[in-house]
Amino acid sequence: MTASGNPQPGQKAVCLLSGGLDSSTAVAIAVSRGFEVYGLTFRYGQRHEKETRSASAVGKHLGLKDHVLVEFDLRKWGGSSLTDEIPVPTDRGSEEMSASIPPTYVPGRNTIFLSFGLAYAETLGADRIFIGVSPVDYSGYPDCREEYLRAFEQMANLGTKAGVEGTAQFKIEAPLLHMSKAEIIRTGLDLGVDYSLTWSCYQGGEDACGRCDSCLLRLEAFRQVGMRDPVRYVDEGFG
Amino acid sequence: MTASGNPQPGQKAVCLLSGGLDSSTAVAIAVSRGFEVYGLTFRYGQRHEKETRSASAVGKHLGLKDHVLVEFDLRKWGGSSLTDEIPVPTDRGSEEMSASIPPTYVPGRNTIFLSFGLAYAETLGADRIFIGVSPVDYSGYPDCREEYLRAFEQMANLGTKAGVEGTAQFKIEAPLLHMSKAEIIRTGLDLGVDYSLTWSCYQGGEDACGRCDSCLLRLEAFRQVGMRDPVRYVDEGFG
Repeated sequence: MTASGNPQPGQKAVCLLSGGLDSSTAVAIAVSRGFEVYGLTFRYGQRHEKETRSASAVGKHLGLKDHVLVEFDLRKWGGSSLTDEIPVPTDRGSEEMSASIPPTYVPGRNTIFLSFGLAYAETLGADRIFIGVSPVDYSGYPDCREEYLRAFEQMANLGTKAGVEGTAQFKIEAPLLHMSKAEIIRTGLDLGVDYSLTWSCYQGGEDACGRCDSCLLRLEAFRQVGMRDPVRYVDEGFG
Repeated sequence: MTASGNPQPGQKAVCLLSGGLDSSTAVAIAVSRGFEVYGLTFRYGQRHEKETRSASAVGKHLGLKDHVLVEFDLRKWGGSSLTDEIPVPTDRGSEEMSASIPPTYVPGRNTIFLSFGLAYAETLGADRIFIGVSPVDYSGYPDCREEYLRAFEQMANLGTKAGVEGTAQFKIEAPLLHMSKAEIIRTGLDLGVDYSLTWSCYQGGEDACGRCDSCLLRLEAFRQVGMRDPVRYVDEGFG
């Protein structure tokens, strides 16, 4: 689940890459550890299509072995601010953010993402799947909790050839699980991540809104690091 | 996991429906038990696109409350006879079929299907997900085993609002898990399933090939039931 030694030469890992700050850092960690990294990005009907363009740019920047875009449409049933006509909350304080599961929670999303990651990994012969979940997500999203990730791992090892033949054991690697957002940024900067390429805003605008939970958490973390966030915000005075 | 009492009035269930013999029967069972049934069908780049047309016809026939088609493309990485240039095996005996995981196994497929089922169910407020896996699948496919389904259930209950708020407990219902193919057909006939609408062949043809594992198992089961399979085969003398 956490860092577990250096990989064998040529050992493959599938890394989920949304193009946001967290997943971009998680991918950089996988690359730095020496895995042969296969990126996996999803266009799932989210408001912020800009995310997938960022994922593509980050993937090129980090030198992935391959990078696959999988497309499907969760607007078929909606149920989230990101896939339905439910407003994205803005200007919330940290207490309000962590008080309940936010409307930006997308039912089943990480399970779907990890399932595609598993399918891709099994086909490639990779046994690691990286996901950039962090404690900030952990507080609000059920599918970012460590016990969930461990349960996914168990299920994965029963539902694949590996489970029957015992040839490999899938591990879900969540290297950010115990890092603050500021620590994540510092780690990424050490690894040479260009955060100007990343995209975190929940809204669909050309510039980041600076007011949704995701922007607010990101801006606060850059403040803690003592650096100006290199992405452009609607209100240029912000951040 | 198995039948667990009658549903409450209006209780919803999501049912995976491929259009094949098994899933069509599983859906008929869910309907007969009194669930409000929401069908879920996948076009995932499989050879047999005819499957999704059959699923649509079966869904109408069985009177689903709603029926959603989700599309994605597993040919992006292939790895199976159904999604890649790997031949579908033909004319195999039952021993050969059960000796190893067949090339028609699609890595991670049921995990992906169930994940979408989970997302749809959570959004609808349904706590049951029906899947038509049977012992014939069970022998060869890792993601049809009972221990796998139970592990998926556990993961689902940790990765959703239900897991955090304790509002519902997802159950994966696999009503065919202990039925032979002939018993499945008898059950379906009792429930009024029109098997002429279903489609089992792994090949992409207009008529069923009669030679792939899926056709051979189906034909053998209809023989045991003492009934001619109502679908059309390439060799009309067959079956």
